[in-house]
Amino acid sequence: MNNKVLKPNELGIFALGGLGEIGKNTYCLQFNDEIIIIDAGIKFPENYLLGIDYVIPDYQYIIDNQDKIKGLFITHGHEDHIGGIPFLLKQVKIPKIYAGNLAMGIIRNKLEEHRLLKSTEFVTYSASDIFTFKHMRISFFRTNHSIPDSFGIAIETPVGIICHTGDFKFDFTPIGPITDFAKIATLGEKGVLCLLSDSTNSELPVFTMSERRVSDSMNEIFRRINGRVIVATFASNIHRVQQIVEASVATNRKVAVFGRSMESTLKVGLELGYIKCPKDTFISGGELKFIDDNRVTILCTGSQGEPLAALSRIANGTHRQISIIPGDTVIFSSSPIPGNATSIDNTINKLFRAGAEVITNSPLTDTHTSGHAGQEELKLMLQLMKPKYFMPIHGEYRMQKIHGQLGAQCGINPDNIYVLDNGQVLAFSNKGVRIAGEVPSGVIFIDGSGIGDIGNVVIRDRKILSNDGLLAVVINVNLKTKEVLKSPNIISRGFIYLKDSQELVKEILSGTTDFMSKILKSKKSIIQIKNELTDYLTNLVYDKIQRKPMIIPVIMNVKDQEA
Amino acid sequence: MNNKVLKPNELGIFALGGLGEIGKNTYCLQFNDEIIIIDAGIKFPENYLLGIDYVIPDYQYIIDNQDKIKGLFITHGHEDHIGGIPFLLKQVKIPKIYAGNLAMGIIRNKLEEHRLLKSTEFVTYSASDIFTFKHMRISFFRTNHSIPDSFGIAIETPVGIICHTGDFKFDFTPIGPITDFAKIATLGEKGVLCLLSDSTNSELPVFTMSERRVSDSMNEIFRRINGRVIVATFASNIHRVQQIVEASVATNRKVAVFGRSMESTLKVGLELGYIKCPKDTFISGGELKFIDDNRVTILCTGSQGEPLAALSRIANGTHRQISIIPGDTVIFSSSPIPGNATSIDNTINKLFRAGAEVITNSPLTDTHTSGHAGQEELKLMLQLMKPKYFMPIHGEYRMQKIHGQLGAQCGINPDNIYVLDNGQVLAFSNKGVRIAGEVPSGVIFIDGSGIGDIGNVVIRDRKILSNDGLLAVVINVNLKTKEVLKSPNIISRGFIYLKDSQELVKEILSGTTDFMSKILKSKKSIIQIKNELTDYLTNLVYDKIQRKPMIIPVIMNVKDQEA
Repeated sequence: MNNKVLKPNELGIFALGGLGEIGKNTYCLQFNDEIIIIDAGIKFPENYLLGIDYVIPDYQYIIDNQDKIKGLFITHGHEDHIGGIPFLLKQVKIPKIYAGNLAMGIIRNKLEEHRLLKSTEFVTYSASDIFTFKHMRISFFRTNHSIPDSFGIAIETPVGIICHTGDFKFDFTPIGPITDFAKIATLGEKGVLCLLSDSTNSELPVFTMSERRVSDSMNEIFRRINGRVIVATFASNIHRVQQIVEASVATNRKVAVFGRSMESTLKVGLELGYIKCPKDTFISGGELKFIDDNRVTILCTGSQGEPLAALSRIANGTHRQISIIPGDTVIFSSSPIPGNATSIDNTINKLFRAGAEVITNSPLTDTHTSGHAGQEELKLMLQLMKPKYFMPIHGEYRMQKIHGQLGAQCGINPDNIYVLDNGQVLAFSNKGVRIAGEVPSGVIFIDGSGIGDIGNVVIRDRKILSNDGLLAVVINVNLKTKEVLKSPNIISRGFIYLKDSQELVKEILSGTTDFMSKILKSKKSIIQIKNELTDYLTNLVYDKIQRKPMIIPVIMNVKDQEA
Repeated sequence: MNNKVLKPNELGIFALGGLGEIGKNTYCLQFNDEIIIIDAGIKFPENYLLGIDYVIPDYQYIIDNQDKIKGLFITHGHEDHIGGIPFLLKQVKIPKIYAGNLAMGIIRNKLEEHRLLKSTEFVTYSASDIFTFKHMRISFFRTNHSIPDSFGIAIETPVGIICHTGDFKFDFTPIGPITDFAKIATLGEKGVLCLLSDSTNSELPVFTMSERRVSDSMNEIFRRINGRVIVATFASNIHRVQQIVEASVATNRKVAVFGRSMESTLKVGLELGYIKCPKDTFISGGELKFIDDNRVTILCTGSQGEPLAALSRIANGTHRQISIIPGDTVIFSSSPIPGNATSIDNTINKLFRAGAEVITNSPLTDTHTSGHAGQEELKLMLQLMKPKYFMPIHGEYRMQKIHGQLGAQCGINPDNIYVLDNGQVLAFSNKGVRIAGEVPSGVIFIDGSGIGDIGNVVIRDRKILSNDGLLAVVINVNLKTKEVLKSPNIISRGFIYLKDSQELVKEILSGTTDFMSKILKSKKSIIQIKNELTDYLTNLVYDKIQRKPMIIPVIMNVKDQEA
């Protein structure tokens, strides 16, 4: 890119994955021969990406420029900021990963699973660390977010200071350490050239509720409940887990934990000291039966209605150890991620049917609060940082656009506000700023163990198959004598019950035989014949039952095979 | 059922489709040899029902008892109350359909499309009509809802009065005629035996905002906007359409209408007098270019992000006549139906990208209000009707359950509150009430023109196909000589690009040949061989790339075919 996009002594800022609806949270800064990467996130695919497990950004630019990479800096340990690391390390040599304490714990676990622990070096940073490279000097400022050890990153460069907030909210009464206001204000006083700030909740005209309010509210709710308390929350929200543990201890409850990610959160949390409680607080599922219901908390995964999570199994009556009993109260200490509403609703219906009371987050219950800044906090960040240039990051396009409008309200020159697409390079120099061009960007699908071996044709085929299934017609022909040998075989999946549709089957069989007998006598190629047979059968089936299964013609030249 | 479930002179009330998460809004009342049906709704399938167009209730009970049916009474013209009618008429002889003015217009259009106009008689009722049968006497009370001509139904029976609210809200300042409070209160004074009341919004601790507030708000917004106004709303909400037309007229705008359902709403609305405006208010798409932007309103479908609707095409830049220009403001006069959030978000992102301002409903904008009663209105209905027994209807299980709790708060004996499953029969007699048993109930899937020819196996196969596609292996064998003839052919769809996966293809081919050569020598049946080959290939593929396509083995016995 240096030769093509950036000029010498220009600082380039660009996202490989920055817009939520496309990639996820992978930002790069480049000055001459130095590149640093901030975060390497993963995106969970939207429904229409059938069978895709994850979506990652296209790493082509940093693959091509890996000799320049100084390190990957992680702001915090959420999947949309660290989930891409294994896929990145498989493709790019990253000399060092820099991360806070908790994020590093999670990353190491993840890389151990992928057997990638040896492919990079790990540097755990603390709030006061500074890392100096030839052109860039990296420091950190603590923020508050829905996972401990969240940081913003300040990068001093030859053209000025760039600040990247990571995900944040302002919480004046957090659980855990508070935002480093002084450091942020000092950066603002020194002069911030460009601020990159989290746009996720920029549409909400609020100052996000403090995590402390959830804590108070959960304590009140726990006191009111006489039977068992079953709480589902995001496993990574360790502060929340700590509050649930505290509310349990305060109401004389033992805590049983279910769900793989919740168990591993607890393990990491206890090891690193984020979870603190009396020694005998936790019990196993097997011990539950020896304890009175009003002395039990069940802490579990499944707040998003994920089909295999602990709470969903409990609701379905398929959990190995827990079933709902009268007097149970289920608390959702969470809010629905868009797209999950239906699954969550179904889980709640099942819990009601099983006889549980269900408490979800609402202005009346306050069992959850967001980890992202609302409009008032975004303005506070803008006023503290007072950047000359402003680049809204994270979230979807409309959120970045609205965040940009907030920036203008806070006095930033509208011409200095840049909502960029992934790949677009914003270049700063002593002369000013320009959009310097584009680096390769896009999305790569991960399905099973493959990286990028699935493309749009495969997705399109899955869509067709999912709508109407398939109809394969196997025809034995003799290409020399131009004869159809015997009646074709048909095979269907996801289409209709063939047994119940004898008439349709008969028409397909005789239609195919007639069609093939005629067309074999033409001079058409086997590919042409297949295409025309497909069209013929598509129309025949659609006429009969208004469905469009995928037609798969299999033409076997028997004579040829034996030859 | 009379012989099996109901005793003589018992009044049975039951839903074939009553719970939203299962069927949709098809209630029956039976007294001896008389059955009336209230509404015949359709449900749009959840995402997991791949390829299914609609879900209807199982009509078996009324098929078996069609000689007793006196009529189908429709409360209002929404799809979840009338959409099942064509499928019902194809299976059951319904002597008469009774509906209000607008609902009847919509039903007749629908049946004309299905060529079913001659299969029943149509009786358009007005608020003052009374229909008398041997055991039942049917009258109506006007309600307010998000479509004009919405009614509740009162059924006088030998055991007492049953009231069914239909969908409703209380709106003290509606557009159009107001709820008939006097009639409802009079029914309450006479004594209501059992109330069936709409639970859709029972979770919301509110008194739903008046439609008039939306009208005021839209007028304010229209005045503020200088460029074109593009409004998307539910086509069936004719009062809303009228307000948008009025706001346009008040701000000197002409209205162009896009989207098939919006056009047909307008046609019906103008014909029946629900839409009133100066003669030259509407213009065609072609005329838009002759009018200043600030004199244009574009009224369209697509408020739910439906991929083929007018607004989605406009957002995508694929609309035949309209593309977004600077200064355009898009108003969503709607709220997201759960499950549509992601599509709507995508549409909004695209509109932002194209340069439009976007206004969605929020407490700051009030561009939409619900048509369903919140908790305070539900309590008002309960206090007016003062029923002895209470049966929450509509909505999902948890909503009915919460509605039941509201009933208890309003003084109904908790033992007299019944949240029933579809098919469960509540029977009233002079001696009291009992759950008398169950009639057949369940869901029927509609895909294309088939009714109920798709079952769970087909859906399961579609799910597998949608996740990982299919891999068909065609093997020619000679069963007599127990030989594999030539190398197998493989065909895949929605799996991987075979061309890019030569190594995997090679392993599948040689693995299959080896496997078949061995197993042919065993005494296993062809079915056993197919099953074992499927298992073998499933494992082979999963080991290599962690995916599980549907394996389709096609074993062709060539010798046999020629014989």
